[in-house]
Amino acid sequence: MKEINLGLIGFGTIGAGVAKILTDNREIIQKRLGAAVCLTKIADLDIETDRGIHIDKGVLTTSVDDILENPDIDIVIELIGGYDPARAFILKALNNKKHVVTANKALLAKYADEIFTLVEEKGLSIGFEASIGGAIPIIRSIREAFVANRIHTIEGIVNGTANYILSKMSDENCDFDVALKEAQEQGFAEADPTFDIEGIDSAHKIAVLTRLAYGTPVKFEDINVSGITNITSEDIECAREFGYRIKLLAISKYDGEKIDIRVHPAMIPSGHPMASVNGVLNAIRVCDDMMDENILAGHGAGALPTGSAVVGDVIEIARNIKSNSIGRLPASSFQNSEIKHIPLKDISTIESEYFLRFNVLDKPGVLSNISGILGNHSISIESMIQKGRGEQGKAVSLVMMCHRSLEGNIQKALQEIEKLDVVSGKSNLIRVEK
Amino acid sequence: MKEINLGLIGFGTIGAGVAKILTDNREIIQKRLGAAVCLTKIADLDIETDRGIHIDKGVLTTSVDDILENPDIDIVIELIGGYDPARAFILKALNNKKHVVTANKALLAKYADEIFTLVEEKGLSIGFEASIGGAIPIIRSIREAFVANRIHTIEGIVNGTANYILSKMSDENCDFDVALKEAQEQGFAEADPTFDIEGIDSAHKIAVLTRLAYGTPVKFEDINVSGITNITSEDIECAREFGYRIKLLAISKYDGEKIDIRVHPAMIPSGHPMASVNGVLNAIRVCDDMMDENILAGHGAGALPTGSAVVGDVIEIARNIKSNSIGRLPASSFQNSEIKHIPLKDISTIESEYFLRFNVLDKPGVLSNISGILGNHSISIESMIQKGRGEQGKAVSLVMMCHRSLEGNIQKALQEIEKLDVVSGKSNLIRVEK
Repeated sequence: MKEINLGLIGFGTIGAGVAKILTDNREIIQKRLGAAVCLTKIADLDIETDRGIHIDKGVLTTSVDDILENPDIDIVIELIGGYDPARAFILKALNNKKHVVTANKALLAKYADEIFTLVEEKGLSIGFEASIGGAIPIIRSIREAFVANRIHTIEGIVNGTANYILSKMSDENCDFDVALKEAQEQGFAEADPTFDIEGIDSAHKIAVLTRLAYGTPVKFEDINVSGITNITSEDIECAREFGYRIKLLAISKYDGEKIDIRVHPAMIPSGHPMASVNGVLNAIRVCDDMMDENILAGHGAGALPTGSAVVGDVIEIARNIKSNSIGRLPASSFQNSEIKHIPLKDISTIESEYFLRFNVLDKPGVLSNISGILGNHSISIESMIQKGRGEQGKAVSLVMMCHRSLEGNIQKALQEIEKLDVVSGKSNLIRVEK
Repeated sequence: MKEINLGLIGFGTIGAGVAKILTDNREIIQKRLGAAVCLTKIADLDIETDRGIHIDKGVLTTSVDDILENPDIDIVIELIGGYDPARAFILKALNNKKHVVTANKALLAKYADEIFTLVEEKGLSIGFEASIGGAIPIIRSIREAFVANRIHTIEGIVNGTANYILSKMSDENCDFDVALKEAQEQGFAEADPTFDIEGIDSAHKIAVLTRLAYGTPVKFEDINVSGITNITSEDIECAREFGYRIKLLAISKYDGEKIDIRVHPAMIPSGHPMASVNGVLNAIRVCDDMMDENILAGHGAGALPTGSAVVGDVIEIARNIKSNSIGRLPASSFQNSEIKHIPLKDISTIESEYFLRFNVLDKPGVLSNISGILGNHSISIESMIQKGRGEQGKAVSLVMMCHRSLEGNIQKALQEIEKLDVVSGKSNLIRVEK
């Protein structure tokens, strides 16, 4: 039986998951693939810590060149994350004619052009299903299942930490800080959760998905990103009253001319299938001209779900090796020569429905002031709730849902409203996605 | 540029969808595939009716051999459905060294062994993503994304007609007959809807999925199937009161020894993501040892969603042709030599929670009679509602939710209960899936 040799760089949580899957499910993998995949070398700076999996001593090494320069190794799995030295390792692997599997969305969001070009030049394959949505087969679906269709919308809950926090705030009426602390205690949030809660991780992922969906490189810095740290339990409660749930969404829409790409908290109708995707689950919705929509939901993180996506990619490449197939599938979904720059939309030009929350003094005339300014900017109000009655001189929350409006108008109106004497502090804006 | 030639057999709804996709999206397909796919011949008994797509006269033929014996054709697309002559056409195509794409679940549920063996013998590929869940990439996901994992559960809403009817009954409080009639008027149900509403179509699909998931042939006749014709608006209302929605589910669970495979209406908690998959949408949930669960939802039928799955398969095979890959992916997900018979579970041996509905006379002692019989069979009641008060001698509905029990015990208890003088007509049983 043919044997495919793997070298794993990075023996952390996901790396240990990959090793466990390859060990525990060796037999079923062989039954499906018709070949054996063998974890030949694992490189990590720490080769002493017990990961709970039996690994032969000779497999472990602290020298990455034992993998990158090993003529026996067919596929290199990069699981160290970050830009450097991950980028250098991947480039070296490719230059040494090794296929690559990675879960590194940050790297691909920034260096996909360089890496994918080298993959094509060398006639190799790269798998990165594990970089987005853990076990959710979103990359496979875009590159293969929806390959004949003109995708126009991708919307996803692609960060499990943020979704866990928002779900907890929704279901237990707790504040952001409490939910974050519990997420950290449960191991669902890092000690430094910035990338997750500020939307940066989601932005990495939507940058990669946008490339695959529309065949364009995306400059990561151009993505409009806001995280969930401004979401209050009051926002969540209002969302519920209006029939919505708040989710951190990564959004990419293509109208044939420009791409509207952004990451922000959004209200989605509580009856929508994505509204019941809670906790650490992820979900991604793809819409196109032919199949209308598909929603894929599953575990977006964790050693075994993410590990199973890594091993899925390993087996896909093993099939290419076994069947002597070269350059079967372009990494970017489009042929590299067809990757074309598509301009991004300025966020001020998008249209959306909006939820607005203001802190106002509870006195006559306030609503007419605010609604007057909104009206002047062509924004019409669908419904309005004043939360409680304020004592003399104390602020209350005024929340409203606005009909479809131009973002630029909303922003101008908010600036004017915030200058009113009866309005205190910063207002909150949450876009509504239906 | 390399050109891949297709022959399409069956120019009905889906066939016209395939032709439209290949025509309208020719350019994007080329940008992704790096080759052209050309619809060279279309065979149908009716080549006169206008399908609303421009097709050159020379492409249309009434003779299927213009495709099956055409040396230029690389891939044959079979979209006529049913057993014969579809089976003969597919076998002839394979014998003539042509790859095959089909949407024919009935055929695969019965003849997969024969067809897949020939595919392997000839070193060809077969695509059948369109046979289950329309545009939902379920077959691709099982054969490729979850390939390293031991799948243990597949549960799906895989019939759009039945789901449309049940959704309508739920959302508009209408009776089965009214919902069916509207489904027929809207074109979501056939004039003869038997296959859809009796669960037969769902059973075809779960038979195919079971083969892929566990590597076993399934004898279609051995699947326990019940449809939705016994579901009343009262059942739907009770489901709502207990916090559930009723869906027609196709279920296949493997405990490592036997497979529990069945199709029946089931109650699922209203907060479950699959509960909000309504109308003609389909959804399929896959659970395994590594990624826990994945839910895929989308349009399960329709010319363009199903057509896009057909074209996705065409492009997958075109990639194999283009990259000279042979026998890359086994049709059954497992290598053909690894397909092993796994016994099916007798339904009397499964365990489930149950919703029961009885027509009883509203008089003292009835509940104690019924609950006594249930208790004698080790069935304990979780909650109970009597719907309304009956006039003297008139029947009322008694509905109850039972804790996890053995199906055999439930069936025995129902038989005894139906013999009681105070119980009239047949009771209804709906299994609860959580």
